[in-house]
Amino acid sequence: MSDKTKFGRLPDRGTTNRETVDAILDEGFVCHVAYVIEDRPVVIPTLYARDGDDVLIHGSNTMGIAKAVRQGSPLSVAVTHIDGLVIARTGFHSSANYRSVVIHGKGEILEGDEHARALDVIVEALVPGRLDDIRPNTTSEVKQTSVIRLSLDESSAKVREGDPIDDEEDIGTGVWAGVLPLSQVAGEPIPSSDLEEGLDTPDYLRRYQR
Amino acid sequence: MSDKTKFGRLPDRGTTNRETVDAILDEGFVCHVAYVIEDRPVVIPTLYARDGDDVLIHGSNTMGIAKAVRQGSPLSVAVTHIDGLVIARTGFHSSANYRSVVIHGKGEILEGDEHARALDVIVEALVPGRLDDIRPNTTSEVKQTSVIRLSLDESSAKVREGDPIDDEEDIGTGVWAGVLPLSQVAGEPIPSSDLEEGLDTPDYLRRYQR
Repeated sequence: MSDKTKFGRLPDRGTTNRETVDAILDEGFVCHVAYVIEDRPVVIPTLYARDGDDVLIHGSNTMGIAKAVRQGSPLSVAVTHIDGLVIARTGFHSSANYRSVVIHGKGEILEGDEHARALDVIVEALVPGRLDDIRPNTTSEVKQTSVIRLSLDESSAKVREGDPIDDEEDIGTGVWAGVLPLSQVAGEPIPSSDLEEGLDTPDYLRRYQR
Repeated sequence: MSDKTKFGRLPDRGTTNRETVDAILDEGFVCHVAYVIEDRPVVIPTLYARDGDDVLIHGSNTMGIAKAVRQGSPLSVAVTHIDGLVIARTGFHSSANYRSVVIHGKGEILEGDEHARALDVIVEALVPGRLDDIRPNTTSEVKQTSVIRLSLDESSAKVREGDPIDDEEDIGTGVWAGVLPLSQVAGEPIPSSDLEEGLDTPDYLRRYQR
């Protein structure tokens, strides 16, 4: 485990530990992808899945990513989970508890079988069990959706957890301090208005947790 | 309302409507900021608050943003709320329900009174009511925290909501379809381990909603 990456020193609370990186990535499904077009940065949210030592980035509706990759732009990808608000005794020490991963590198637009498989990997990562219930993508559907593969070689995680860290002189001054926990929760699945009657909600949706 | 911005045509489901943009920004507090350093994009999560026609971006622990702004890099900022997973009858039409805003522009590093005030605006936006309970920042604390102001002139929103939109021939094939709602919820506030006894949890934390 190193505290340096090719892109410089890791920040406070940073780690390149792959177990930490993988756990954070596997809990999420939306990333923010940044690329450069005409010397300007562009950041957009999109779906992703981790696939071993890579992330697979879904490029539908966000064709800018594929275009940027084709033009040679490197990518920077962030995945962030917010676990709470850190309510310190001062504004200065107030913060958020979070777990985030940032990945840098050159993306690769997948083609052929790798492309088709990657789309399935993303569906199965989003909703484990779903893939068995749906028909395979058609060739045309695969073509309309790009997937960019990005290696985790240059990835690092940052984690902030626990109590606020206040200055000695602010403790015991009658000001409340602590953490307001925040989490993402799934509600009851809502059947589509065009769903035929008598179809049960799949178990994998009722058990859904991130 | 236009479907174009200086950075090109708006994507599907895009709008530059400021009421939509403001509502999405006001519900969040974590953004992803992208900038360019040595022709490479960098994206990082940080705290922000909307302040009228601007967003104020918190630069502590993320000095890269301030450095990039000083070197002339434009910024791209995204705020994204995930409202659900769209469980379509095919992988192709599966998606997420979300509301997102993307802002482009040159940031400005705040100084003097604007800087001190901006830090207070961020604290109050994070936890409305909190500012009255804490002491003012010291001059040294203000200096250790940079705030970047970015205009909302070049901002747009994207919203996807409601049912999956499946192809005619896939409807009625016995495959469940619908939406799995997701939301961020606040839990019970956790007092800091160094909190003196007998202090009540502030009402603004018990009522906290985003």
